[in-house]
Amino acid sequence: MNEFPICSATFTDAGRAPRVLPEETAVAITVNGSTYAVLMATPASLEDLAIGFARTEGIVDTIGDIEQVEIVACEDGLEARLWISKDRADAMAARRRAMAGPVGCGLCGIESLKEAMRSVPRMSGSGALISETLASRATTLLRHQQRLHMRSGSMHAAGFLSPKKGIVAVREDVGRHNALDKLVGCVENMGCAPESGAFVLTSRVSVELVQKAAMVVCGMIIAVSGPTALAIRVAHEAGITVLGFARNGTYECYCHPYRISQG
Amino acid sequence: MNEFPICSATFTDAGRAPRVLPEETAVAITVNGSTYAVLMATPASLEDLAIGFARTEGIVDTIGDIEQVEIVACEDGLEARLWISKDRADAMAARRRAMAGPVGCGLCGIESLKEAMRSVPRMSGSGALISETLASRATTLLRHQQRLHMRSGSMHAAGFLSPKKGIVAVREDVGRHNALDKLVGCVENMGCAPESGAFVLTSRVSVELVQKAAMVVCGMIIAVSGPTALAIRVAHEAGITVLGFARNGTYECYCHPYRISQG
Repeated sequence: MNEFPICSATFTDAGRAPRVLPEETAVAITVNGSTYAVLMATPASLEDLAIGFARTEGIVDTIGDIEQVEIVACEDGLEARLWISKDRADAMAARRRAMAGPVGCGLCGIESLKEAMRSVPRMSGSGALISETLASRATTLLRHQQRLHMRSGSMHAAGFLSPKKGIVAVREDVGRHNALDKLVGCVENMGCAPESGAFVLTSRVSVELVQKAAMVVCGMIIAVSGPTALAIRVAHEAGITVLGFARNGTYECYCHPYRISQG
Repeated sequence: MNEFPICSATFTDAGRAPRVLPEETAVAITVNGSTYAVLMATPASLEDLAIGFARTEGIVDTIGDIEQVEIVACEDGLEARLWISKDRADAMAARRRAMAGPVGCGLCGIESLKEAMRSVPRMSGSGALISETLASRATTLLRHQQRLHMRSGSMHAAGFLSPKKGIVAVREDVGRHNALDKLVGCVENMGCAPESGAFVLTSRVSVELVQKAAMVVCGMIIAVSGPTALAIRVAHEAGITVLGFARNGTYECYCHPYRISQG
């Protein structure tokens, strides 16, 4: 994906060295030719973004259902074109038809709210164990690998923490949801199961990030900042361990602490 | 809006005092009975959110076009029901029909991209002048008024900076876009023109925040963190002054510095 600029230098008023700013581009994700969503994203690792998005949003259940990904430049941004198996596309279309509520009745927000609060798979005690020591160092280990953030100073990252190997994959983006989706695409492309480790995030933990982790069966989220109360309620239900304010060698655990091992 | 909890206490593993976490709720914004968008938002100042969203997304051109706002609790979240004038609703429906691209042709992402990169009004040299001293203190002044952030530690805020009076309004939310929309609703409800001051943000500056400022004709954004390169290109075109990394008494100005006055 070297054809799109990821950062750009911008001059400031102060006559200092130019500030390098992260790029942000409108990316339309299309599924078998229909637009599914438009994201504002950093134009790096876009195949990972499309694949990860398809997994965390439940468009496909496995990456095997994705037949092709194309990244195409358009006048106003980029298209990430996903082509998925016909069976899966038919199932998706049926689900969408079932969800489409009445329009213009004054109550149709209810269906949209139901979709936002989609139920997610529940993990039943499985998932990797992470040692206390590794958990408390996780965001520091991630920081050392935030290459784009080092250049631009304002970018989110998501890393995959393996209990044995530390941070084995990192993806960056101006958006925290995109960073996680890119990481999921990358990790699953590597043939690595999200269940075997933890997602380490530079951001706050909103409910959408917990929903995304649940969709790909990852049992632990470790984040630099705090979660929302709703994120913790959903994580509790989904069986996901959440660690917040993980910085300076400490953290707080809000639910399912049994995945943190002594030592 | 005291009927919805804004923060909740959560116990952590460490036997410390309970951590107070910000609430997050799915909020469906409906316009004359049809769902327009679903946001994940902190359930405070929801009328301001609905009004500000209608303004920054161009659903109405003035708050006078809004006839009523109702906040209604549903099973999966809240509905913010906007009722706007028939003329304005007809204009919006016509625009939506004109924008709807062909479906299933493999190219329909183009229309969605065009919408994401919507053109915004251009300010022609108007807007408030802010002194260097006030600009460099703006985010500190805002911090003193972030009541919910003080309780929960992980919440965004947007404040309105008047050149004469300092920060005159503050709104908070788990989402930075929502915080700005709430502020816009609040400021316009106060009968105050966004053009008369600056928006002060605790977040990064993405292109969407610049688009929102342009829609309500505010000439300056002062943010704690950095902008994206695209945000600056759009701000340059729209005639908006952007200050980033405004912390510890300093800032960087990326475009249109003429609104910063000496002293």
